[in-house]
Amino acid sequence: MKLGGNFFEDLGPGQVLRNPVPRTITDGDTALYIALTSDRNPKNCSDEFARSLGFDRAPVHDMLVFHIVFGRAVGEISLNSPGNLGYADLRFVRPVYTGDTLRATTKTLGWRETSKGDTGVVWVETTGYNQRDEEVLRFNRWVMVNKREPQTPTNADDAPEMPARASLDQLAFPTITKFEAWATGGQRFWEDYSAGERIPHPQGITIEEAEHQMATRLYQNTARVHFNQHQQNASRHGRRIIYGGHIISVAHALSFDGLENVVAIAAWNGGSHTNPTFAGDTLFAWTEVIETIDIGRPDIGALRLRLVACKNVDPNTEDVPVKVAGEDDRERYNANVVLDLDYIGLIPRRAVAVL
Amino acid sequence: MKLGGNFFEDLGPGQVLRNPVPRTITDGDTALYIALTSDRNPKNCSDEFARSLGFDRAPVHDMLVFHIVFGRAVGEISLNSPGNLGYADLRFVRPVYTGDTLRATTKTLGWRETSKGDTGVVWVETTGYNQRDEEVLRFNRWVMVNKREPQTPTNADDAPEMPARASLDQLAFPTITKFEAWATGGQRFWEDYSAGERIPHPQGITIEEAEHQMATRLYQNTARVHFNQHQQNASRHGRRIIYGGHIISVAHALSFDGLENVVAIAAWNGGSHTNPTFAGDTLFAWTEVIETIDIGRPDIGALRLRLVACKNVDPNTEDVPVKVAGEDDRERYNANVVLDLDYIGLIPRRAVAVL
Amino acid sequence: MKLGGNFFEDLGPGQVLRNPVPRTITDGDTALYIALTSDRNPKNCSDEFARSLGFDRAPVHDMLVFHIVFGRAVGEISLNSPGNLGYADLRFVRPVYTGDTLRATTKTLGWRETSKGDTGVVWVETTGYNQRDEEVLRFNRWVMVNKREPQTPTNADDAPEMPARASLDQLAFPTITKFEAWATGGQRFWEDYSAGERIPHPQGITIEEAEHQMATRLYQNTARVHFNQHQQNASRHGRRIIYGGHIISVAHALSFDGLENVVAIAAWNGGSHTNPTFAGDTLFAWTEVIETIDIGRPDIGALRLRLVACKNVDPNTEDVPVKVAGEDDRERYNANVVLDLDYIGLIPRRAVAVL
Repeated sequence: MKLGGNFFEDLGPGQVLRNPVPRTITDGDTALYIALTSDRNPKNCSDEFARSLGFDRAPVHDMLVFHIVFGRAVGEISLNSPGNLGYADLRFVRPVYTGDTLRATTKTLGWRETSKGDTGVVWVETTGYNQRDEEVLRFNRWVMVNKREPQTPTNADDAPEMPARASLDQLAFPTITKFEAWATGGQRFWEDYSAGERIPHPQGITIEEAEHQMATRLYQNTARVHFNQHQQNASRHGRRIIYGGHIISVAHALSFDGLENVVAIAAWNGGSHTNPTFAGDTLFAWTEVIETIDIGRPDIGALRLRLVACKNVDPNTEDVPVKVAGEDDRERYNANVVLDLDYIGLIPRRAVAVL
Repeated sequence: MKLGGNFFEDLGPGQVLRNPVPRTITDGDTALYIALTSDRNPKNCSDEFARSLGFDRAPVHDMLVFHIVFGRAVGEISLNSPGNLGYADLRFVRPVYTGDTLRATTKTLGWRETSKGDTGVVWVETTGYNQRDEEVLRFNRWVMVNKREPQTPTNADDAPEMPARASLDQLAFPTITKFEAWATGGQRFWEDYSAGERIPHPQGITIEEAEHQMATRLYQNTARVHFNQHQQNASRHGRRIIYGGHIISVAHALSFDGLENVVAIAAWNGGSHTNPTFAGDTLFAWTEVIETIDIGRPDIGALRLRLVACKNVDPNTEDVPVKVAGEDDRERYNANVVLDLDYIGLIPRRAVAVL
Repeated sequence: MKLGGNFFEDLGPGQVLRNPVPRTITDGDTALYIALTSDRNPKNCSDEFARSLGFDRAPVHDMLVFHIVFGRAVGEISLNSPGNLGYADLRFVRPVYTGDTLRATTKTLGWRETSKGDTGVVWVETTGYNQRDEEVLRFNRWVMVNKREPQTPTNADDAPEMPARASLDQLAFPTITKFEAWATGGQRFWEDYSAGERIPHPQGITIEEAEHQMATRLYQNTARVHFNQHQQNASRHGRRIIYGGHIISVAHALSFDGLENVVAIAAWNGGSHTNPTFAGDTLFAWTEVIETIDIGRPDIGALRLRLVACKNVDPNTEDVPVKVAGEDDRERYNANVVLDLDYIGLIPRRAVAVL
């Protein structure tokens, strides 16, 4: 691994990088995840409830698995990145338990220099494995990366096609025989949601510097923009930028109110960090049901959900459009909208619900 | 569970609520408890010392058990609460170990609309159970709750009597044969304290936003006032209010200096959060011995203690009266006093002390 | 233990203090250590990698062991200390695993009143033991301690000689048969470093109040200057001072970039906290190789390293002299330099490297 990390010029397609620092996930990580995000999914915080669903004990939260795997791939891909641009075809394919050791491998899929020429976009595929070399998570992402020599053109122009939807072939959820709804507090099941429905999440959470830094360090994600105020003083924002993954976690935790029974994330079709978030910002979120998907199981179904997070406006009391027309009439994300995530959640069907 | 939580109108007497989100307590929670409160009770942080007292290994700190059980009961009772008013007859009745999964049930005991009519007081009894359905903690509390319709009178006026003292019938402390005092650093035992004595606690602790938010989220206590600065901007205080339970934990941790050998909390007779605390405030505490109680055991005795916490004045160097007379000659809590807790601590007798 | 802690007058030579509060280290502590310092040593965060080196599973980070042992010795030695002055002959002599319970004993070795007469310097030796009474760490330090009666001379003038170098007789690292370099990401081994070489560490980390307070409380280090803003308002700095050990941890974590394969700290020859650090400061670090030491093992060698940390200047882009001449022509530490640590790291030799 290069000292100071790779730059755009180093990340041409066709490389397979074995990402350093394997990481054993422990009870310490899961407690910190709750303390930093306010997550309340009982599948992940109650061994008893997890066993009632068919798990050995509480599995590690899907998003914590994501962060740990993602964190492995920062040093070689996005240490010198001004921002992550998007995700595609992300799939959680196997439960992870505390005590498991995760590692990651990243393939470079494509690259394209930006028109301004000082940065470029790199497309990669990262796969996370456990200590038995079993795949637990895979995803594509594309990320802006600084050039080492901003003045020297690379002519890189090889952008791969990204799938619009994630595959659901490798679903790893156990068979549920009964789902004790008191444990989530939720009374709605797969059949109770409809496409087009908007679900408000009434809470708001203000994020502090210490919180996002602790989260991001816990994941051993070392991207410079999150930690180094001295450097950021000279940047466009003048502030440390909160790791986009932390925003997903907080927004997803907020979504528990209204989606209590969506006990697992199966996949992400795609997602964008549409604006940066800074310490002191208060996050709010709502969810739109895009589609209800019958996955052919009698115990659970899937919901395709759009999770939108915004900052410093409360979408429960104010009208917050996701996109607004600019002076040139082109639609752009509202400056208060910080996340637009298209994902697949798993939720029990009424047949297994114990109310 | 209602989206957005219950309001006063929803909480009439006679309901039994099975509070959502069972929670397994782990080593991650206990480490965070120490990091957030500065607790040093060796019974809770040393497996070796705990075993020397007759425990299997270090039990979970009494106050952490309280917070986890209390956190279960927030969503249905106090999500829309401007503040918790008081506690009665709180009893820790069984040790909790990491790996145990706690759940809670809450009964509504009574209610009374306030004279202004926009809020009301609700009296509840919450009981915490472990995964074997054994009771570990029970307590009454009364809490101010906002009305959904502040303009519509409810005529609710059914305030139950609360016991002035907690029962000590269910004491769960093992029999001590020897107490190695080097481990606490304390040289005073049950016989060495007298009623009326005031014990200074010389340290002070400044609380940050990130700290109280992490503590309160760890307990999955989602009361709005602690996390949502955007909402609080429009509130009377304009600030996020620190969860009162965190104040108890910090004050109790401060009390280790001077009460080193009070190794367990048996019960609370009552307690009040007498003023709000905000990030940036520095907490101090002192304890008054109300009574020394012979509980009929040769190894341990009980002390009835009054733990008083104040903010931003150092009671070791300044005179801080607990109550002051207002213009109307009525006594009110000094604006700097934030906690007045009447509890029962357990402490070894000299007979078992190894100095 | 005296309420309020010992003062200089209490700490004459020849005392052996059994420091209170034994402490079991858990997975919660190790996760918090990562979250608070950004440490990435795979020996300490991957059970799999640790086993490949011959450990039972991931041992506790050397610096976390130091902090826990050091924290034991604060209450009796440095509660009333304006600052720690130096360390000598520190040795990590046995791996510590989560579940181990550490305790400490401190001997007072010598003392000397300062010329101003209101404080004095105390020299001590602290030894940390596990639950099997096996030594895990020992070190000398000398520390400034306030006098109880600043006006009354003590005539204390008995300063012991401190060894200039730590002994390496008790090295506890297992025999490595293969070292999988992908896990650290480092490609340099013992033979690849040379005396005089300067290794830049490109990252910077800004420290928040909540972070250093949580770290210091986790170690149950209760020195007043770190926590009590109310008291510090009246102090020279007017700020809470960050625990010097946290600075060592953060600087050491920064040094992973460039010293990826230095998988263990064997010893410290000496070290100084050369200036105080406050919340909001951004830390940077570099390392100078003082000496490469052949310890007679075919698998690993030792590097004598000088780790220098500075605040709020980036030594990768600006020239930061360690010492500068004052008006009196005496050399003093640059006001931006906060740590000067002389330590021994262990690193595999090429013979065992798997690239």
